[in-house]
Amino acid sequence: MQSKKPFAQGVLRRSGLAQFIDHTLLRPDARPMEVANHCREAVRHGFKAVCVNPFHLGLAAGFVAGQGVLPITVVGFPLGATLTSVKAFEAREAVNLGAREIDMVINVGQLKTGKTRPVLEDIAAVVQAAAPCPVKVILETGLLTDDEKRIACHLAVEAKAAFVKTCTGFGTGSATVEDVKLLRREVGPDFGVKASGGVDSAEKAWALINAGANRIGTSRSTMILGG
Amino acid sequence: MQSKKPFAQGVLRRSGLAQFIDHTLLRPDARPMEVANHCREAVRHGFKAVCVNPFHLGLAAGFVAGQGVLPITVVGFPLGATLTSVKAFEAREAVNLGAREIDMVINVGQLKTGKTRPVLEDIAAVVQAAAPCPVKVILETGLLTDDEKRIACHLAVEAKAAFVKTCTGFGTGSATVEDVKLLRREVGPDFGVKASGGVDSAEKAWALINAGANRIGTSRSTMILGG
Repeated sequence: MQSKKPFAQGVLRRSGLAQFIDHTLLRPDARPMEVANHCREAVRHGFKAVCVNPFHLGLAAGFVAGQGVLPITVVGFPLGATLTSVKAFEAREAVNLGAREIDMVINVGQLKTGKTRPVLEDIAAVVQAAAPCPVKVILETGLLTDDEKRIACHLAVEAKAAFVKTCTGFGTGSATVEDVKLLRREVGPDFGVKASGGVDSAEKAWALINAGANRIGTSRSTMILGG
Repeated sequence: MQSKKPFAQGVLRRSGLAQFIDHTLLRPDARPMEVANHCREAVRHGFKAVCVNPFHLGLAAGFVAGQGVLPITVVGFPLGATLTSVKAFEAREAVNLGAREIDMVINVGQLKTGKTRPVLEDIAAVVQAAAPCPVKVILETGLLTDDEKRIACHLAVEAKAAFVKTCTGFGTGSATVEDVKLLRREVGPDFGVKASGGVDSAEKAWALINAGANRIGTSRSTMILGG
């Protein structure tokens, strides 16, 4: 049962939250100067990672080097509907530029046909291209039925990804406690679950963590931590 | 001056409109069967092109082969914030799969810094990778000032692209008469201007064409033509 005063520990509690957070800046109009500020925030707050578009990855990797913050990026983002060869190439380029984790988008349209092999191969190609860098598989849960979410989880595990992740934040849908519970149940205790999309308060972040998420993706990280 | 009855010519008028239209299906959850239906519609209505995500391009190219409809796709879509190397690779892969035109997204964040050379090189790399296939440069006008739109137009011309294009349809903003006039003025009479984003009626399509667009991108093409 949850404490009635989950935030009573103040700074310590907030600091604990920071280590769950991928501090995210994926706006297409973000300028390098904003990316640099974003990285400074990540270092100051002790966030787990800074997540930026591939174009900004080199800059971000330089900024957070040796600061205990992982530079991470996205692949096939946010539609997931490009070619597997392109996703794999993008992942490899990102790793060469210093990416320490890759958040790829699953092929949603293909998943919906029920033919799982091309979806599996798409994920596996990115996992292989990114190796040994861990890969998160964004399911875009807002577009999926519960059955499709379950199948996607099993494909991510089978393809040797490291995480399943709820949403891109650019489509419909947001991270929900129900979806995180479903994802955690399907992938088991030793796989990653990242909750992202619409996470705009510490309360929501902790609720998602309590539901089974071990990572939170949000662009509102500093607001969540109170400055 | 425009006629007071611009649609009096009925079917003929609508048929004229079809040849301006890139019939577009870029939803991430579109299944191959929907893409096939989309291609059938394009052939039936005599649309200029069918625009689909890279994953569906091979299917679309097969469907419209020999039918007078161009199979086209998108690159760096819709954020435009991936690496130049990835955009060029994606363009080359698409051309190899049968793409007859490439709609790429400009690097908006870089454009906003005022440093134009990386933006120019980004476009030029895609133009070169796609050659001789024409390249359209999506400016995402909803994110730009008028000055930035003007600069982007000049960069697209200098990089030897074939078109400038207003919007992805996935971001803020939509095709406006004012923006099309601005784009046409900047690129001159011999360059392409594609109006896309929020084009949902024949009236709007013709207004954009009258303002200087020689191509319209829309997912609501069959509705616009009345079925």
